[in-house]
Amino acid sequence: MTLQYALELIGTFVFAISGALAVREREHDIFGAGFTGFITAIGGGTLRDILLDAYPLVWIADINVLYAILVGILAAFIFPNFLSKLRKTLFLFDTLGIAFFTVLGVEKALSLGVRPEIAAIMGMFSAVMGGVIRDTLTNEIPILFRKEIYASACLAGAILYLILNYFGLERDWNLLISVAAIIAIRLVAMKYKLSLPRLD
Amino acid sequence: MTLQYALELIGTFVFAISGALAVREREHDIFGAGFTGFITAIGGGTLRDILLDAYPLVWIADINVLYAILVGILAAFIFPNFLSKLRKTLFLFDTLGIAFFTVLGVEKALSLGVRPEIAAIMGMFSAVMGGVIRDTLTNEIPILFRKEIYASACLAGAILYLILNYFGLERDWNLLISVAAIIAIRLVAMKYKLSLPRLD
Amino acid sequence: MTLQYALELIGTFVFAISGALAVREREHDIFGAGFTGFITAIGGGTLRDILLDAYPLVWIADINVLYAILVGILAAFIFPNFLSKLRKTLFLFDTLGIAFFTVLGVEKALSLGVRPEIAAIMGMFSAVMGGVIRDTLTNEIPILFRKEIYASACLAGAILYLILNYFGLERDWNLLISVAAIIAIRLVAMKYKLSLPRLD
Repeated sequence: MTLQYALELIGTFVFAISGALAVREREHDIFGAGFTGFITAIGGGTLRDILLDAYPLVWIADINVLYAILVGILAAFIFPNFLSKLRKTLFLFDTLGIAFFTVLGVEKALSLGVRPEIAAIMGMFSAVMGGVIRDTLTNEIPILFRKEIYASACLAGAILYLILNYFGLERDWNLLISVAAIIAIRLVAMKYKLSLPRLD
Repeated sequence: MTLQYALELIGTFVFAISGALAVREREHDIFGAGFTGFITAIGGGTLRDILLDAYPLVWIADINVLYAILVGILAAFIFPNFLSKLRKTLFLFDTLGIAFFTVLGVEKALSLGVRPEIAAIMGMFSAVMGGVIRDTLTNEIPILFRKEIYASACLAGAILYLILNYFGLERDWNLLISVAAIIAIRLVAMKYKLSLPRLD
Repeated sequence: MTLQYALELIGTFVFAISGALAVREREHDIFGAGFTGFITAIGGGTLRDILLDAYPLVWIADINVLYAILVGILAAFIFPNFLSKLRKTLFLFDTLGIAFFTVLGVEKALSLGVRPEIAAIMGMFSAVMGGVIRDTLTNEIPILFRKEIYASACLAGAILYLILNYFGLERDWNLLISVAAIIAIRLVAMKYKLSLPRLD
């Protein structure tokens, strides 16, 4: 098991936790919470792979992904209060998760032979569309349409990765720098309550 | 035409009726009602087949499915009051429909070579995602996230089917028992207002 | 570059503008507006091609589509007030766009060998599902479920195209007549506030 594979499973696990806990304030029972955890964890990558015709889907081909999700959901069921108190830690993990999935999504798209412009969109989709689908199903306004700098940080990081890749930067360094850039943009935007301008 | 094929068409027909009538209290015109009937009837199986890369989609390959839907929608248009008075009968048919589609979805997934854990999810998706997509499009909270035991009954029945299948039970008996189990769970849960615990 | 290809790019461009401006009254920042412009422009054709297993998707295979969208989004960012004042013109372009995309969607589906009934649905989906997905993501009731004659005009035009095609009408004339029929139905319905009956 490589480090990257371990990170992917951990990212999936964290997404499942945050997805299951996202509905906590609402009327959902444990089935609904598990369902949203599942959708949050697989939604982005699934949409990317359907758009790219990249079958079989990751979570269908590799059962470990499903188990990482189930463990995440179980953790959310057993320790909801403990995990909710870890909100700041979870936020950090979620930020790490979207940053990491963005770059992996870009790489997967590139490996399938699409143009960089498309790969940038696929990277962002991988990271954020799970949450968008979850919010849509549960009748929330997706975070993507709220004020926060969120998906735009992923898109910026994806573009950075593609630029550095174009100039021949070694892959592991590029991964590290692009992930760090996404995290930095998101944290700085949160701290200083930065937001993009509105259309008016 | 086998009994199973006839049951599939009848299930599709009933889903189309319940989908078209689901929007009755709202502002939808007959086009909107027909559209939701259509989405309700094909949504679950379509999502399952897209996830599994199982093309062509059932309703695109077999035009009878589309006609079963059209007849269901027409019936909803012509006899809305009569059918709405049959609410209890329709509830029974809907319950029969989700139970039957769950097991057929499990079998289709297994026949495509996926693992049983994935097949269980696909069975549940086949049965309930049509309604979820319909509710999402019409800005309702999907039933799956409300209190009722609904999708969880399908998941339980799917798992039961897989266990009995693992132990070598003959297929027709397994179909019968698993379908009966889903119906029983749903009816008992409705009668005694049972619900799963919430996350708190 | 053929006339038809030019019209497709212009249609995509107009859809991106109307999608980006659709959210103007709401809280969206420029990223959210760009995202909705993108979804509006690609959603319908993407859904059609996923349902028909027609890969690669148009906007992934042909980068010009993405640039037409980006230019449309940029135009919406730079001239929002000017474009909003052009509401009537945009409405005409949007009507032209859905009419044109309906017929192209029908033709694409037919070219993939599906039956005419399916092709009619695919034509309508091509034209209207981008807006439906956009409205669903942003928690609006899709226009399809509101009073206006919108998707039903597309479906009527698609059926007209298929009938004229069946009777051997030459393709360019058929395109012209069917597009004109959709536009006429929509404009007349708007002018006289016609709507389909409700289900009651």
